[in-house]
Amino acid sequence: MSNSFGQLFKITTFGESHGPAIGVIIDGCPAGIELDIDFIQSELQRRKPGQSSITTQRKETDTAIINSGVFEGKTTGTPIGIEIKNVDAKSNDYSHIAKAFRPSHADYTYQKKYGIRDYRGGGRSSARETANWVAAGAVAKLFLRKQKISIHAFVSSVGAISMKEPHLTDDFSTIEENLVRCPDPKLASQMEALIKDIKKQGDTIGGQISCVIKNTPVGLGEPVFDKLHAALAHAMMSINAVKGFEYGAGFAGTKQKGSEQNDLFINKNGIRTATNNSGGIQGGISNGEDIYFNVAFKPVATIMRDQESVNEKGEKVVVAGKGRHDPCVVPRAVPIVESMAALVLADFVLINQSLNLGVSSKQ
Amino acid sequence: MSNSFGQLFKITTFGESHGPAIGVIIDGCPAGIELDIDFIQSELQRRKPGQSSITTQRKETDTAIINSGVFEGKTTGTPIGIEIKNVDAKSNDYSHIAKAFRPSHADYTYQKKYGIRDYRGGGRSSARETANWVAAGAVAKLFLRKQKISIHAFVSSVGAISMKEPHLTDDFSTIEENLVRCPDPKLASQMEALIKDIKKQGDTIGGQISCVIKNTPVGLGEPVFDKLHAALAHAMMSINAVKGFEYGAGFAGTKQKGSEQNDLFINKNGIRTATNNSGGIQGGISNGEDIYFNVAFKPVATIMRDQESVNEKGEKVVVAGKGRHDPCVVPRAVPIVESMAALVLADFVLINQSLNLGVSSKQ
Amino acid sequence: MSNSFGQLFKITTFGESHGPAIGVIIDGCPAGIELDIDFIQSELQRRKPGQSSITTQRKETDTAIINSGVFEGKTTGTPIGIEIKNVDAKSNDYSHIAKAFRPSHADYTYQKKYGIRDYRGGGRSSARETANWVAAGAVAKLFLRKQKISIHAFVSSVGAISMKEPHLTDDFSTIEENLVRCPDPKLASQMEALIKDIKKQGDTIGGQISCVIKNTPVGLGEPVFDKLHAALAHAMMSINAVKGFEYGAGFAGTKQKGSEQNDLFINKNGIRTATNNSGGIQGGISNGEDIYFNVAFKPVATIMRDQESVNEKGEKVVVAGKGRHDPCVVPRAVPIVESMAALVLADFVLINQSLNLGVSSKQ
Amino acid sequence: MSNSFGQLFKITTFGESHGPAIGVIIDGCPAGIELDIDFIQSELQRRKPGQSSITTQRKETDTAIINSGVFEGKTTGTPIGIEIKNVDAKSNDYSHIAKAFRPSHADYTYQKKYGIRDYRGGGRSSARETANWVAAGAVAKLFLRKQKISIHAFVSSVGAISMKEPHLTDDFSTIEENLVRCPDPKLASQMEALIKDIKKQGDTIGGQISCVIKNTPVGLGEPVFDKLHAALAHAMMSINAVKGFEYGAGFAGTKQKGSEQNDLFINKNGIRTATNNSGGIQGGISNGEDIYFNVAFKPVATIMRDQESVNEKGEKVVVAGKGRHDPCVVPRAVPIVESMAALVLADFVLINQSLNLGVSSKQ
Repeated sequence: MSNSFGQLFKITTFGESHGPAIGVIIDGCPAGIELDIDFIQSELQRRKPGQSSITTQRKETDTAIINSGVFEGKTTGTPIGIEIKNVDAKSNDYSHIAKAFRPSHADYTYQKKYGIRDYRGGGRSSARETANWVAAGAVAKLFLRKQKISIHAFVSSVGAISMKEPHLTDDFSTIEENLVRCPDPKLASQMEALIKDIKKQGDTIGGQISCVIKNTPVGLGEPVFDKLHAALAHAMMSINAVKGFEYGAGFAGTKQKGSEQNDLFINKNGIRTATNNSGGIQGGISNGEDIYFNVAFKPVATIMRDQESVNEKGEKVVVAGKGRHDPCVVPRAVPIVESMAALVLADFVLINQSLNLGVSSKQ
Repeated sequence: MSNSFGQLFKITTFGESHGPAIGVIIDGCPAGIELDIDFIQSELQRRKPGQSSITTQRKETDTAIINSGVFEGKTTGTPIGIEIKNVDAKSNDYSHIAKAFRPSHADYTYQKKYGIRDYRGGGRSSARETANWVAAGAVAKLFLRKQKISIHAFVSSVGAISMKEPHLTDDFSTIEENLVRCPDPKLASQMEALIKDIKKQGDTIGGQISCVIKNTPVGLGEPVFDKLHAALAHAMMSINAVKGFEYGAGFAGTKQKGSEQNDLFINKNGIRTATNNSGGIQGGISNGEDIYFNVAFKPVATIMRDQESVNEKGEKVVVAGKGRHDPCVVPRAVPIVESMAALVLADFVLINQSLNLGVSSKQ
Repeated sequence: MSNSFGQLFKITTFGESHGPAIGVIIDGCPAGIELDIDFIQSELQRRKPGQSSITTQRKETDTAIINSGVFEGKTTGTPIGIEIKNVDAKSNDYSHIAKAFRPSHADYTYQKKYGIRDYRGGGRSSARETANWVAAGAVAKLFLRKQKISIHAFVSSVGAISMKEPHLTDDFSTIEENLVRCPDPKLASQMEALIKDIKKQGDTIGGQISCVIKNTPVGLGEPVFDKLHAALAHAMMSINAVKGFEYGAGFAGTKQKGSEQNDLFINKNGIRTATNNSGGIQGGISNGEDIYFNVAFKPVATIMRDQESVNEKGEKVVVAGKGRHDPCVVPRAVPIVESMAALVLADFVLINQSLNLGVSSKQ
Repeated sequence: MSNSFGQLFKITTFGESHGPAIGVIIDGCPAGIELDIDFIQSELQRRKPGQSSITTQRKETDTAIINSGVFEGKTTGTPIGIEIKNVDAKSNDYSHIAKAFRPSHADYTYQKKYGIRDYRGGGRSSARETANWVAAGAVAKLFLRKQKISIHAFVSSVGAISMKEPHLTDDFSTIEENLVRCPDPKLASQMEALIKDIKKQGDTIGGQISCVIKNTPVGLGEPVFDKLHAALAHAMMSINAVKGFEYGAGFAGTKQKGSEQNDLFINKNGIRTATNNSGGIQGGISNGEDIYFNVAFKPVATIMRDQESVNEKGEKVVVAGKGRHDPCVVPRAVPIVESMAALVLADFVLINQSLNLGVSSKQ
């Protein structure tokens, strides 16, 4: 079921980079939510190509067409079908890779798995697909807004330029004020300079996105295989170019002792923890503290240089460095990270709600 | 569906730390596989508590009882029901936490989510559950053996003691020769000394496990939401105490340029890559190179020290440091990591097989 | 997951009767199948409203727009997004039911379940949705054609006019030759006369569809909860207006003795059964004989007469008899039955294929 | 996923007729329900073999062992593992069918699908599996009791002896007072006489079970593919020997006109329908009226007569009439029908509950 995500709040998507349109069906969104189309569009705007000097120059309007599931401005509980036309797809850009495999792309694995591939723009493997996720994630955010849950992603590193303790960020208002989407304006301008330099070299660079989720109720997440952080990891690892996920104390915490990492419970207007190395999740279930995690993105594989490769027959070829691409993917991936997180949270809110039946001793 | 994992090769589990038994149903295992019970038992032996001076002293026989799915020594295609009795469960050990919440455990979140919890030994949140996974993983390994796929996990760090480039390990024969399960004997003895020291302090320490999967065919993994690495991340993040996952170049690779990280295709008795920063997976699909990934484990939350906490009413209490536990979880988690990886791989082999119908142009 | 159907060959749909468009995503269709668009369109043509004097007069072009999943005429293994525009939706037809509940429609249950409903044309509960199924079913048929499996549905009764032993029909060529889609031309003209008479009365009438599936291999269907006939029943009961399902000897067979109903095995160029009261399925798994089943359709609930009802406040109202509808649904439901059967079969072919791994003793 | 049933209230089962034990995992049962073990046992007692002169003489204690999911008498929200030992399995009874295929059993299809089968007692295809369903169904009933929903199944026909309008039955107290489980004592004694006569002939006979579900709230069922009646059909068709399902006016209603079958809405202390040809379900969603349906059972395939058949090589053989079996399956199937209905209802109650989030306009 590679093209569906979620159990109760569930999306199913279709679309290739260079086909007529891409689209998503959101199934399970509760009825009665005001579907703010301007908000959906503003989220798509954040992800859109061609935004700035440091992103790909492909021009897409990325207009969300709502085909179903809404009546008189509100969701009806039936599936919401959203469609986004591909406007600026230039098929002639890709003849050079019809038979050759671009290094570190999905060309080779798709060809071997399916015996056929739409090579134009990477076909289904293109990050164009993530426009579907952002449209659906916007709907999930509208739903979560009713639950008071808010999700804040931002760039915490580009190459070696890195924020310290990004999860302690508490002013998210500056994120959209710079091209890089880093809440620290000083680092942001260093990152921007680095990306421009890398671009000039015809190269690309990796980076990290951090995400903080506020006001999560206690109880989201299922104990064993659908731990909240396992679902978040699955969601994040679905994003193109992602190579790692950590939450709470993460990899650095492997060097700590239990006495250092343990979060002591205290009473501070209710049960809270004194520290938050758990990243807001204990035993796979949210504990009411901020949820936070980091996502590692590799450098974009498309570079403006010639690279050695092979074709379908295994013969040596040179893949020319062309095509439109981002020198660094993290600025545009910020809304994608938020959207996937929103889809996970919305799903777990519904799953948790299914248990509240007035039969449990807790009520 | 928090207690099931997998789509076609699927497990469903039950059991608490201190109930009469735990168990697993393996659904979807193909027919005709010789079910080598000695192998299953030897895998359980690797995970068993009470193995050595650096693991918990709980004594369990962990005998797998096969209740179904096997006839005359072979799997029949029907569900394999496996049961493991709890033998050394001491319920009186846990009265001190009946009303109090242990720091960084699941006590609080379970209590709030369900309004009731079996507090003995952590109940369902106990790592005892992982015996089910190892039993099922052993069956998955027997299946994968027919496909020539082999999975090798090992400890690559304990605290600050860390292997360099663990994924380049090519001699796995030494792993089981030391208590820590690190393939580098020198580091292994340092790690063992560290764990013993930490134990003496009544404390615990974190660490990492690395895993290398050999001989994977090209084509495993589904393109969008069920990318092979996303499923592996989900599986690993399901393991108790895991805080992070990375594959291929991972977090360190975020500092690289595209020209550094890209894996060029070459022809070396077939299409291969010159380097393997992709970790054997491109576009979510295995490319035939070694798959490798790292898993971050936090220090065990149970420490032999008094810790401040609160009880169900939010009143301050002291949680005494007692109970049987591991000072460092990674040595015993090695077979757990392998088992979860085996379950993912077996599932994707079946999913991929479902596509081979003689109708595709590749055949 | 109310808007998805299938496990490996899976569809997800969206759309209301009077929205801009309806659509379906087919996920899991194998790569390399020639996607014959003329065939898809001809199947939609069979279901289309406005075909003849005995069907609703709504005029829809029902043109399938393929948005993804096809490259150079062949499926690529990625999801196939199909969209069908609503052309002849007249919203003003439905103001009379904005607040009132039509008898035996879904108006009341939707209103109570969701608190909101798109009342125009029944919204999501409209049989317009079945155009999605026919488009997807056509793709499934193209896939099944490669497996030599063919599916033949036809009208076997209208009101009290009924075929004897419909499953013994072996000439399916006459089905499309009459408006009713009954293979017996004599009965067909009686049925047509009955429907015209009922229509003149402003009333509607029920009927049955029978379906025969030829050339199914032995082995389709899963033993316990996904028995082949259980999945077919689920599929058929999903169709609007269906009230019953039986296969093989069915309800009539409840009066038989075991010695009468049992199908003796014989060797006739391979293992076959002498009779076929099993309807081609034993223990939930196809046995290679013809699969056959009957589906009961109630009379259409929309009649051209005034009916007493209540409004949302529970006040007595009269619902006027208007709107465009079919006096008898079975003729147009024939391709819908075939399509749902094709989706079930395609799914089980893939599931069965996943087991063929060269490790089973049968190979 | 042939061995799991349900989405949120979900069971997964294992076990063969002649293995050491069978069992079921109930996943998703809400916390805080008093798990009345005597009730579970009494339900198993109703299904048990060897109850009376008209059932099979196999003797099983069918004792449910609860291995998990319960603490201090209440469910904890974690999976409930239930195990039932096989006590009276006589493997030597079945040597005569090790190589031969019994007519109208699953022997042939299992052999061809899997290449191997546990032929003892039919292995996995044995109705012994249904003990798992009854144990799980008892838990579902305990949950539904809190929702005031009650489920009443009974035998409505044996062979040609048949109740008129079984769904109008309103006194269910007599059902358990006769061996046949028919609420009409007069018909019950005729049915019993018929079964005894058939048994004397060494033959078997089919029959029907009807089921009435009371006090269902409005709103259960999902609109498109998970219509309440589609899920009930799927559940019932999963039961061994079932050949048909109809609800509401069913097959007989295909002969009616819309003006006859339509259920007019009235206000009678709330919105109700004047008649109930809809069987309590409209548009796939419960409307608050009684839900009712009929299930057709074929005569048991095992008869006490020699029957011609073939063996695995296709050679003619005679299958001797022996083994323990029921001359008519319907009396013992009554609790099975109720259990599967309870599992469906419990699942849909949870799914419906997941939508109640205080964001819908209905609240």
